[in-house]
Amino acid sequence: MDYILAVDLGGTKIYSALIGPGDLIVSRDVRPTEAELGQEQVLDNIISGIGAVTTADTIKDGRILGLGIGAPGPLDPWAGRVCFAPNLRWRDFCLRDVLQNRLGMPVFLENDANLAALGEYLYGAGQGNDNMVFITVSTGIGGGLILGGEIYDGAFGGAGEIGHISVVPDGPVCSCGNRGCLESMASGWAIKGQALELITAGQGGQILAVAGGEARDVGCPAIVQAAQRGDPEARSLLAAAGRYLGQAIGNIANLLNPSLFVIGGGVAAAAGRLLLEATEVSAEQRVFPALRSFLKIVPASLRARAGVLGAAAYARRQLAKQNMPQPN
Amino acid sequence: MDYILAVDLGGTKIYSALIGPGDLIVSRDVRPTEAELGQEQVLDNIISGIGAVTTADTIKDGRILGLGIGAPGPLDPWAGRVCFAPNLRWRDFCLRDVLQNRLGMPVFLENDANLAALGEYLYGAGQGNDNMVFITVSTGIGGGLILGGEIYDGAFGGAGEIGHISVVPDGPVCSCGNRGCLESMASGWAIKGQALELITAGQGGQILAVAGGEARDVGCPAIVQAAQRGDPEARSLLAAAGRYLGQAIGNIANLLNPSLFVIGGGVAAAAGRLLLEATEVSAEQRVFPALRSFLKIVPASLRARAGVLGAAAYARRQLAKQNMPQPN
Repeated sequence: MDYILAVDLGGTKIYSALIGPGDLIVSRDVRPTEAELGQEQVLDNIISGIGAVTTADTIKDGRILGLGIGAPGPLDPWAGRVCFAPNLRWRDFCLRDVLQNRLGMPVFLENDANLAALGEYLYGAGQGNDNMVFITVSTGIGGGLILGGEIYDGAFGGAGEIGHISVVPDGPVCSCGNRGCLESMASGWAIKGQALELITAGQGGQILAVAGGEARDVGCPAIVQAAQRGDPEARSLLAAAGRYLGQAIGNIANLLNPSLFVIGGGVAAAAGRLLLEATEVSAEQRVFPALRSFLKIVPASLRARAGVLGAAAYARRQLAKQNMPQPN
Repeated sequence: MDYILAVDLGGTKIYSALIGPGDLIVSRDVRPTEAELGQEQVLDNIISGIGAVTTADTIKDGRILGLGIGAPGPLDPWAGRVCFAPNLRWRDFCLRDVLQNRLGMPVFLENDANLAALGEYLYGAGQGNDNMVFITVSTGIGGGLILGGEIYDGAFGGAGEIGHISVVPDGPVCSCGNRGCLESMASGWAIKGQALELITAGQGGQILAVAGGEARDVGCPAIVQAAQRGDPEARSLLAAAGRYLGQAIGNIANLLNPSLFVIGGGVAAAAGRLLLEATEVSAEQRVFPALRSFLKIVPASLRARAGVLGAAAYARRQLAKQNMPQPN
């Protein structure tokens, strides 16, 4: 039996899985990334996570064909190189070759959001949609494009930076240095900042109450909980974020005319309809009228598994390409 | 010798060409569309244009393999159907089948901007850029995407509506009904409207002078001419349009990470650096910093020929696909 290893390397957690026949997750492991302890420690943690999912117990009479790994972008999937990952404190690091040497098996690196997009496309909410846009709304906002049934990387591996589409041209400064990016208006960090502004101005009492009265404990969980209890201020924050997300989706629909938008990420999952209702209204308003009937937005269905399932599928696809006869 | 017919069907003109070996234009014809005289007249004009380029003189010992035709979108290239073309006053018209019946040869229909994109990619400013975005700035703003060396149509044929990306979320009403689309801020009709607003407010004297003192003669030619003579008001109008174009390009770069943007269309060609300088500055400011070094914007090089050259190449490619062995 053939197995594939899959790793989703995040800024705070490393999610590892062993994927067996039938694309089933045989075993999984989650451990801290410990990026603050340096690159060697992160690599050791990746190797330990892989070790934890590949015991004699999990692999029976089989062999591991390779490893698919997702890391924060932008990265160069062809060279297997992480170009710039502030959360990992990495820059220009050839993760693929290092892991290949340590593990002695083929390793395939892709952008984590691209792999989550592939996972949702093949196994989740995106099934059957060969032209699909995946957007993850969590602390930041990322995305991945499936075009013609494949991950679309762009010319240099940088496609899908959906969080950095401008939605308020003269808006607040984003983490990237531009103004009014979608991420600066609708991400977890942006919504939290907006709530803290309210509280500083003497408003947002319900949100503060849910957070136990401490501004430092205000975050998306408290905001979502307050909104679920009917707090109009919290609801208004999530609806505004949803509207900006919808504006970006309208723009993307005009450019790519996909058959589906799949919305994942922790903030979107927690907020649910409190976010997506406004998204739908705003996207419909923004999309070119002749394309309006094609617009479809659904929540992601795989949660954290999307990344590892996509990583395994990507590794399988790349291995199959390597084994195909080459044109002369 | 094998020939391909190519037609670029516009709202005001029909451009026809016979393309011979070596992708050379053997003969060409331009005539009015006469959309106001109805669908039958437009069809007759297409047929007459084709007749004019396929005389015994132009075709020597050869046969015509098929016709590639570009029409305003959105359209359905798989069904060969024009869905909605206000300039032609057409809606849901199966142009491909009608022409196939009248001409007795295979006909391939695509969006006119997509074909111009293919033309610039294969023969013009985009050569070698397998992931390329073409934008045409003329009376309206359109676009076409070349992804992986092929026209990207989207799931339903509607991709590339670049003119309807929002650049000023609460901006003026666009022809499509939305607000602040790129087309409503930077197209020929938008720039003309901005100039007329100036003139109504008692400004824009140089523009009015170039137009012979008559507001009804103010259009992009007068505005560009005034700007070329150094008029700060005209320069400012073109620079503002260029900035909005750059903002849209920054967004598209973040989403698709192409290796090149090619800017065509009559207004862009006439305005040249008066438009594109501001475009470059603004695009560079908007693009995600890690992707900034990949940003490249150049003017189109084929002008009106892009459409027919792209149409012929598209027909050749589709014919080659039809002749390929089909998978079982």
